[in-house]
Amino acid sequence: MRHLLGLQDLSPQEIEGILRTAAAIKAGDLNVSGSLRGRIVVTLFFEPSTRTRTSFELAARRMDAQVVHFDVGTSSVVKGESLLDTIYTLEAMGVDLLVVRHQASGAAHFISRHTGCAVVNAGDGMHEHPTQGLLDLFTIQEHKGCIEGLRVAIVGDILHSRVARSDLFGLTKLGAEVTLCGPSTLLPRDRSGEGSLPLHGVRITDSLDEALEGADVVIALRLQRERQQSGLIPSLAEYTRFWGIDASRLSRCKPDVLVMHPGPMNLGVEILPSAAYGPWSVIREQVTNGVYVRMAVLYHLLAKGGENQPQGITEAHGGATDRSLLPVGRR
Amino acid sequence: MRHLLGLQDLSPQEIEGILRTAAAIKAGDLNVSGSLRGRIVVTLFFEPSTRTRTSFELAARRMDAQVVHFDVGTSSVVKGESLLDTIYTLEAMGVDLLVVRHQASGAAHFISRHTGCAVVNAGDGMHEHPTQGLLDLFTIQEHKGCIEGLRVAIVGDILHSRVARSDLFGLTKLGAEVTLCGPSTLLPRDRSGEGSLPLHGVRITDSLDEALEGADVVIALRLQRERQQSGLIPSLAEYTRFWGIDASRLSRCKPDVLVMHPGPMNLGVEILPSAAYGPWSVIREQVTNGVYVRMAVLYHLLAKGGENQPQGITEAHGGATDRSLLPVGRR
Amino acid sequence: MRHLLGLQDLSPQEIEGILRTAAAIKAGDLNVSGSLRGRIVVTLFFEPSTRTRTSFELAARRMDAQVVHFDVGTSSVVKGESLLDTIYTLEAMGVDLLVVRHQASGAAHFISRHTGCAVVNAGDGMHEHPTQGLLDLFTIQEHKGCIEGLRVAIVGDILHSRVARSDLFGLTKLGAEVTLCGPSTLLPRDRSGEGSLPLHGVRITDSLDEALEGADVVIALRLQRERQQSGLIPSLAEYTRFWGIDASRLSRCKPDVLVMHPGPMNLGVEILPSAAYGPWSVIREQVTNGVYVRMAVLYHLLAKGGENQPQGITEAHGGATDRSLLPVGRR
Repeated sequence: MRHLLGLQDLSPQEIEGILRTAAAIKAGDLNVSGSLRGRIVVTLFFEPSTRTRTSFELAARRMDAQVVHFDVGTSSVVKGESLLDTIYTLEAMGVDLLVVRHQASGAAHFISRHTGCAVVNAGDGMHEHPTQGLLDLFTIQEHKGCIEGLRVAIVGDILHSRVARSDLFGLTKLGAEVTLCGPSTLLPRDRSGEGSLPLHGVRITDSLDEALEGADVVIALRLQRERQQSGLIPSLAEYTRFWGIDASRLSRCKPDVLVMHPGPMNLGVEILPSAAYGPWSVIREQVTNGVYVRMAVLYHLLAKGGENQPQGITEAHGGATDRSLLPVGRR
Repeated sequence: MRHLLGLQDLSPQEIEGILRTAAAIKAGDLNVSGSLRGRIVVTLFFEPSTRTRTSFELAARRMDAQVVHFDVGTSSVVKGESLLDTIYTLEAMGVDLLVVRHQASGAAHFISRHTGCAVVNAGDGMHEHPTQGLLDLFTIQEHKGCIEGLRVAIVGDILHSRVARSDLFGLTKLGAEVTLCGPSTLLPRDRSGEGSLPLHGVRITDSLDEALEGADVVIALRLQRERQQSGLIPSLAEYTRFWGIDASRLSRCKPDVLVMHPGPMNLGVEILPSAAYGPWSVIREQVTNGVYVRMAVLYHLLAKGGENQPQGITEAHGGATDRSLLPVGRR
Repeated sequence: MRHLLGLQDLSPQEIEGILRTAAAIKAGDLNVSGSLRGRIVVTLFFEPSTRTRTSFELAARRMDAQVVHFDVGTSSVVKGESLLDTIYTLEAMGVDLLVVRHQASGAAHFISRHTGCAVVNAGDGMHEHPTQGLLDLFTIQEHKGCIEGLRVAIVGDILHSRVARSDLFGLTKLGAEVTLCGPSTLLPRDRSGEGSLPLHGVRITDSLDEALEGADVVIALRLQRERQQSGLIPSLAEYTRFWGIDASRLSRCKPDVLVMHPGPMNLGVEILPSAAYGPWSVIREQVTNGVYVRMAVLYHLLAKGGENQPQGITEAHGGATDRSLLPVGRR
C-alpha cells in the first residue's frame, strides 16, 4: 500500500489490517511514538476543514512526524501555479506524505500518479473520504465485535456524499447489509448508471421507518444547506420531518443501535439533540477513533515493515536528472 | 486549580504561587523543559491576536508541548457548528488544554463547564484577561519587590477593558492602592452597579494629574478607536491632551515610577514615545515576562504535582459511554 | 555574519563558505540535526509566499528549531502597531531569528538595525532575495563545478526583480559573465543611474537570441502580470513570442545548458513546457537545493562555531533596563 485514495481500492484484508493496527495502537499494544521521526507530512487542503486537518495533524505528531500546513490561500496556487507544479515543489522539498483535500473528485488519484510522495485522500469532491469510512468501521467493530451481517442504515444526501460512498465500500466489503435512505432526489436513481457504487444487494428507500427497522447502526449524513437552494429538497423543516433522526424514530431499531454522524452536525436538521447526545450516540467516539485510525494509516504508509524508508530530500521525478530523455548529442 | 479563567476566582495565595513559579522558571531554578511532553495545547482564538497567541505558543513549546492552532475562520464554526460541538470534538481528539479568546464575556467559563480539558482564558469580551494581569503583577513585583502598599494608576478606557479588570482584581488582592483614571464616559460610574468589580477603597478620577500624583506604577490602556465613533470620547487629539501619558506628565509620579502598557500601543494616542521608550518604561519586559508567566500557568495546570496526568485520547463526557442514562431496556 | 540581508553585502569568500556548508549538509558530511535545538525561528511574511516560507520552515525544522509563523494578517500590525513595535515584541519574547519578507525595499536592513535577533531577508521589494541567489549559485555549481567564466543569461523583468539583483551580485562576485535580457522597458537603462547594480562588464540586450548564444545557464524570471496593465509590455502573447524560453530557442545555447526559474512559473508566458520540463531543466533541483542552502544559512547564523549562543528570553534593547539614559535624579 503506497497511498490511501479510497476504500474502493482496498481488499477486505487490507481494510482489516488497518483496523487491527488502529486497535493495537488504541489498546497500547503497538507503540508508534517516534515511528515517524524525521518524516514530513504536509496537509494540503483546497477545501477548508479544520476538524479533519487537526485530526491528521494530531495523529502525525503523536508519531513524531513534522507536520506542515500548506496554506493554499496564500500560496502560488492563487498566483496561477498549477496543481502539479505545487506538488512537484513539495516533493522536491523532501515531503514524505501529502494529506490532500480537494473539491474535485479524483484529485487525490491524479496527484498520486504524479508524485513519489505517499498520498492520503482526506476527501475529494463527491468521491471518497476513506479515513472517515475507516473510522466508522472501526467504531462499529469496537461496539459490535464484527461487521458481517450487521444491518446499517445510511440516511441523508447519499448522492453527493463522499462519506456515504466510502462507508458503502467499506461496509459491503466487510459483509454488512446496507440500506441507503433519503429523499429520492438525493438517492442513486439508476443502479446501472451509478458506475462504481457497489449497489448489489443494497436496499434503497425513501422511507426512514423502513430503513431503521431492525437496524444495528444508523449513520446520519450532514445535509449541505445548498441542496435547498438548488431545489433538491423542499425545505429544511420538511427534510427534518421526514429524514431527521431523533430518539422516537430510533425505537424501530435494535435496542443497542449505534447512532453515528461524520460531523459537523446540523443539529435540528439531519439529527436532533435527543439522538445526537442520547445514549445510542457514538459520535464523539468517532472523533476519538479518527485519530487512531489516521495513526494506523500513516503507520501502514510510512513506518510499517520499513519498506518505505525516509527519502530525505530527493530530486523530484523528471527534470534534469533524467538525462536519458535527451537527444544523444545533449546528454 | 483546574482552569485559569480570571483573577477574580483566585486567592492571593494562588496568585502568589503562580508568580513564584514564574520567577523560579525565569531565574533558572525550576527546569520545566520536557514537563509538557506528550501534552496537546490548542489555541482557540475567536478574536484574532497574534501577539497573545504567539506568547502562549512559545511558552507551551519551551515545555515541549505540542501546540495546535485551531483556525476558527476555516473551521466548522463557519459551517454553523455550535461552540460546544467544537469543544467536544477537540476534547474527543485528546486535547489536554484549551487557550481560548472569545469576544463574549464569560465564554471561557462556559467552555470550562462543558469540557474535561483544562481551560485558560486568553481574554473574554470585556471580562478578564488573567495572564495579562499576572504578567503585570510579575513585572511590578520584579522591580518593586512587593506589591502591597504601592500606588498604581490605571489610565484609559476602564469601562471596556478586560486588562483593567484583571489588573484591578490582582492588584487589590495583593494590597496595592489603585486609582482608575479616564474620561468619565469610560469610567465605572456607579459603584454599586458594577457588580463584581472590587471598587472598595479604589479611587476613581477623571484627572490624570491627580491619578499620577505619587504613583509607583502607571498602566496605560490601549484606546479602541471605535470609542470615538460611538461618541464616548470627543476626538483622539482631545483624549491625548487630557489622558495621554508622556514624559512631562510623569514628573508627578515617584522618580522610579514604572510605565506599563499591555500592547499593542497606539503611539501618540494613549501613550507618547517619550513615555513608551523612556527610561521608566518596562513595556518590553512585560512581553518577556508574559512568556514566563504563561509557562508558570501551564505548569500549574498540567504538570505540577502530577495530579493532572496526561489523559491520552479519552472518550469525551456524555455520549454512548454513559449508558447508565439509558432506559433499562436499552442499556 | 550576524544577518543575511543581501548578496551585495557578502564577499566571494562568505558566499563560497555558505555554498560549501550547503554541499556538506546535502552530501551528509555535516550533520546539523539538533544544531538549532532550543532556538526559535519566526517567519514574518508581510507578502504571502507559501513556497519560500515552507522551504525556510522545513530547513529550520530539520535542524530541530522551533518555527513560529507570525500571521501578519491577524496581528497587531492590522491594529496599527508599527513594524518596530512588532519586532521589539518578538525579540522580547525570546525569538532568535527572523525570516522577513516585506514589500518595501530595505525592510530587512531596517529591521536588522533595530533588533538583537538575527535577520534573514526572504525578499524585500525590488531589492534582494539572497537565499534565492544562493540556491541558484549552488545549483549551477553542482552541475558545472565552477561558476567562474560561465556564460549566464538572465531573461525577463530585470528592472523589478529582486531575484535578478541577488543573482547578479552573486554571479559577478564569483566570476560569471552575465547577460541581462528582456524588453527595453524592463531593463536597467542607464548604467550610471542604477546605483548599486554591478553592471560593469555585464552585457544588456533586448535580443533573446543574442543572450542565449553560447549560454551555459539560462535563468527565466517570473513575469508579474501587472506589468501588462502598467503598459510596460504590449501583451503577454507578444512577450512570450520575443522572450519566452522554449526548447527551440535553447538550441543556440551550449548543449549542456541549464534552464532555471525561481518559481512559481507562468507556464506559457516566460517559459514553455518544452523548456520547463525538458532535459535541460533543473527547476525542481533548485527547490530541493533551496532547503539545503537555507539550512546552511541558518547554521552560519545560529549554530556555527557557537559564537552566537542561544540567548534564552532576554530583555529587548532599550527600555527600562538602560537606566543610564535617565537624568541623574531618576536613575
